Amino acid sequence: MSIRLSSKEDYESLIDKYDTWLFDCDGVLWQGSRLIDGVLEVLHLLRSKKKKVCFVTNNATNSRKTYKKKFDKLGIEAHVDEIYGSAFATAVYLSSILKLPKDKKVFVIGMEGFEEELRDEGISYIGGTDPENQTLEPFSLKDFVLDESVGAVVCGLDFGINYTKLSKAFQYLKRVPGCEFICTNADSTYPSEFGLLPGAGSVSAPLRYATGREPIVVGKPNSTMLDCIKAKVAFDPSRTIMVGDRLNTDIEFGKAGGLSTLLVMSGITQESDITGPNASTTIPDYVAPSVGEFRIVL
Amino acid sequence: MSIRLSSKEDYESLIDKYDTWLFDCDGVLWQGSRLIDGVLEVLHLLRSKKKKVCFVTNNATNSRKTYKKKFDKLGIEAHVDEIYGSAFATAVYLSSILKLPKDKKVFVIGMEGFEEELRDEGISYIGGTDPENQTLEPFSLKDFVLDESVGAVVCGLDFGINYTKLSKAFQYLKRVPGCEFICTNADSTYPSEFGLLPGAGSVSAPLRYATGREPIVVGKPNSTMLDCIKAKVAFDPSRTIMVGDRLNTDIEFGKAGGLSTLLVMSGITQESDITGPNASTTIPDYVAPSVGEFRIVL
Repeated sequence: MSIRLSSKEDYESLIDKYDTWLFDCDGVLWQGSRLIDGVLEVLHLLRSKKKKVCFVTNNATNSRKTYKKKFDKLGIEAHVDEIYGSAFATAVYLSSILKLPKDKKVFVIGMEGFEEELRDEGISYIGGTDPENQTLEPFSLKDFVLDESVGAVVCGLDFGINYTKLSKAFQYLKRVPGCEFICTNADSTYPSEFGLLPGAGSVSAPLRYATGREPIVVGKPNSTMLDCIKAKVAFDPSRTIMVGDRLNTDIEFGKAGGLSTLLVMSGITQESDITGPNASTTIPDYVAPSVGEFRIVL
Repeated sequence: MSIRLSSKEDYESLIDKYDTWLFDCDGVLWQGSRLIDGVLEVLHLLRSKKKKVCFVTNNATNSRKTYKKKFDKLGIEAHVDEIYGSAFATAVYLSSILKLPKDKKVFVIGMEGFEEELRDEGISYIGGTDPENQTLEPFSLKDFVLDESVGAVVCGLDFGINYTKLSKAFQYLKRVPGCEFICTNADSTYPSEFGLLPGAGSVSAPLRYATGREPIVVGKPNSTMLDCIKAKVAFDPSRTIMVGDRLNTDIEFGKAGGLSTLLVMSGITQESDITGPNASTTIPDYVAPSVGEFRIVL
């Protein structure tokens, strides 16, 4: 059973209990382009109490630097090294966990922000936004030259996905011995400003189906994302809490990493998802209406 | 156990036993652009004995009229109404089996040949090769108007697949009540002249993953393909044989339809796929080295 936070004491004791606070963003700090009430005061409160704050998002289209602009626009204090996007985490996974040899490169399905993170981690890449791959013409293997130095295919959300990119990625996955297959995240949908669109997991679906291979998935709920955070920052899991609005990504992610979990009801999860006959089997430790409720302690 | 055809009597008795002969094409009649030895003589022999001959292919990029040009080029006698491609079969499924109301249309992911078959069966469509959808720009729902008259999303192999097409198809599948989801075939790969590329099943994979829906799949090995053939031509299943080179499409297709099956070893199937410890559980009734072997009876 989850603990429902309601009194001032509930919120105070939670703040005392955890030193590191990991926040999902969309549905937790903001909804689309609208800041959730009270978020600024609560983040300020946590910082004033010397809490470590991190922002953990599966968004793989933006680099942290670009994603920070969203925080700036909404007036949320955030530092680039507090933001963990799945593109960044994938780059860290390649450099720090997989330790991709320096003479290897990756073939990218993804956007400029993903490439920026790879560059920042010193990962060489081909594909991505290379104009050669921005085509809707049929792809032919006739003039295709396989680059044997490709050690991994990495796939994130790519609004420019096309048959040439998929065909090339397929060749690397099938024909280069030992070529790794890594996806930023497996989200089936992507919450755009005007509604749901196919997500990163849908963009990689053709490669999973064509090759019959299951990729390493970095983003929430997988613990790889937490391993990447650990590679960059020290924290004590027993004094760390994951705050999110999605049971199957945020809360599962916290649980898989041995963290405490707080579900906020300001995003996608409905009351019927956590109580009654159709409730999920994923049980967060705590439930609160929104992050803004922590203002009660002020 | 399969019967291995070898003697003149074996081949003669098989010809006597079946009135209708369904042939897969690639790996059976030709390999890429090369005609398989003896195919011309054997097809001529069957026709001289008044056998009904049909060509059954999962290829969904070409209309039957275009596909016939391949037969013409190789010198194989074939009539358009003997050719059953999965694009044609999907159009027949919509018109004759699903009986799509005349005021409904379909949203197409697919190529010119697929559109041609839809037009010939009197099915209205949007999407497809419409220049509006030939774009690699990010898709936004802001100006998208849902056409409520879309009764089905149909998806075949599309070398021009992109995020706009996928996003629109996703909207119809998620937002139009009762919208059907139909795929020409579920082939994971496509045998291009210079090697394997992602197939029609890989092109529809993002939609299956994003919606969580399983489509109706028309092509082999599904019996829907046979239902479409039956809607156009009369034959007695007990006197009909399916000849193919793939266990999991051609032979499964014949078995599912209650037909006899002949596996030819001139295509993708290796001896180790049918004998020994790793043999498939799909057992064809007959096995022959190639269609050309029937020349023994001449």
